[in-house]
Amino acid sequence: MPLDVSLNLATVRRQWTLPQAVAAAARHGFAGVAPWRDMVRETGIAESARVFRGNGVRVTGYCRGGLFAAQGRDGFQAAVDDNRRMIEEAAAIDAECIVMIGGGLAPGSRDLPGARSMFVEGVAAILPHARACKTPLALEPMHPMYAADRGCVTTLKEALDIADELGNEGLGIAIDTYHVWWDPQLEAEIARAGRRIIAHHICDWLVPTRHLLTDRGMMGDGVIDFPAIRAMVEAAGYDGIQEVEIFSDFWWSRPGDEVLATAIERFTTVCRRCRD
Amino acid sequence: MPLDVSLNLATVRRQWTLPQAVAAAARHGFAGVAPWRDMVRETGIAESARVFRGNGVRVTGYCRGGLFAAQGRDGFQAAVDDNRRMIEEAAAIDAECIVMIGGGLAPGSRDLPGARSMFVEGVAAILPHARACKTPLALEPMHPMYAADRGCVTTLKEALDIADELGNEGLGIAIDTYHVWWDPQLEAEIARAGRRIIAHHICDWLVPTRHLLTDRGMMGDGVIDFPAIRAMVEAAGYDGIQEVEIFSDFWWSRPGDEVLATAIERFTTVCRRCRD
Repeated sequence: MPLDVSLNLATVRRQWTLPQAVAAAARHGFAGVAPWRDMVRETGIAESARVFRGNGVRVTGYCRGGLFAAQGRDGFQAAVDDNRRMIEEAAAIDAECIVMIGGGLAPGSRDLPGARSMFVEGVAAILPHARACKTPLALEPMHPMYAADRGCVTTLKEALDIADELGNEGLGIAIDTYHVWWDPQLEAEIARAGRRIIAHHICDWLVPTRHLLTDRGMMGDGVIDFPAIRAMVEAAGYDGIQEVEIFSDFWWSRPGDEVLATAIERFTTVCRRCRD
Repeated sequence: MPLDVSLNLATVRRQWTLPQAVAAAARHGFAGVAPWRDMVRETGIAESARVFRGNGVRVTGYCRGGLFAAQGRDGFQAAVDDNRRMIEEAAAIDAECIVMIGGGLAPGSRDLPGARSMFVEGVAAILPHARACKTPLALEPMHPMYAADRGCVTTLKEALDIADELGNEGLGIAIDTYHVWWDPQLEAEIARAGRRIIAHHICDWLVPTRHLLTDRGMMGDGVIDFPAIRAMVEAAGYDGIQEVEIFSDFWWSRPGDEVLATAIERFTTVCRRCRD
């Protein structure tokens, strides 16, 4: 019986191809996986869809859309078109949502408010297509340390304000513990998110953190209070699957089976649902 | 004629002792300096005071108090006592404020809300002494990437809420561009801060940032829009001195005179006051 936990495939991207990683996830008891676009394209979209179905796993998210400002105004339309294609790919692999990140500043730009505006504009531009394809867009606020180069949308409040502005239909929120754990408004904003929460990612914050991108922690190895955040998420009305997503030079250096066995063990001992 | 800019001495702490750094700052045209406690103690408090006066520089801040939760409940009273001594030291060197940071979690703790509560409790405990000594406490929100190990108070909103809770008298706010530049509520919260702003630190965010603590940037080398933030700060009612504070392995490896000449040049070309 699979556990209510999904594996973001980036967690083992250096160890395995997509088919290998999906088979391993199913073997270890993950009920779902979340693929990245480069892995899906390497395997092929139709073949990836067969792999997910053949292993009986859900596709809890497709990573990652957004990033509308990163190539500047001249690159905006290309980014919109690319996001539209991604919606079709997501539909083809039966992904439950697309994870949307703000993206960074254009090269040479210091206009963070402008990048945020372009994100809103980009989401608005693709939203009709996402609605038509019934693929929800999960807005994921990213840790403020990524504001310049990955995620100009940095707080849950900001993501929710954008969802409100765009009418909410076809939009949801992805809550990744790594990105939001520090937020003094976390409890209030998770409550406000309510049923809009459609993804809950788990990853720990290590002390010290040695690299801004690739030193994320296995649940239990850092300082995040997972049961507390899960309680907020469940109180808001989301009791769905949790997705393990860890970018880590350390875990990428370990055998894939060790990573997955550890993730399952930590999920059951550290991230236990508050209702259990 | 000195410029309306101060040098946080940590910027050249590997190059110079306190007397050397202060003399260099005066020579390069800085109107003020901000010493750290370890440097003051090394030189001696009375001697440090003589050095500041002898070089005709203001002491724009004394770094750094707070950190009430870092040693847990058992260490709380010692932290309070230590902060009280720091107030007396600040008065002895005629510092215009003490920079107060949240501090991190106690070893083994995952209780971030608890650490924040202890910070409020600690500030409340020393506030009567600070008021009596006429040494304002400048609450400095720190970048969220320091929430676990240095600064549990992460946003301007949170710092202002604390100041409100404690009655504001004897309290102020330190705005460091490096810590707050990403905040989507920045403009609104700077406006709310108003006359409570008593320190404005400048430092740039580099892309990429290679180390969480020691890869901060010289103004102009990163992505922060200094004129925009300065305009917000001046609109709120603070048109006072700006303090250069850069922790950087790169700048620590350069000759001190080169660092100061560069800082002065960048201050005049990049951080120009909006009213100029």
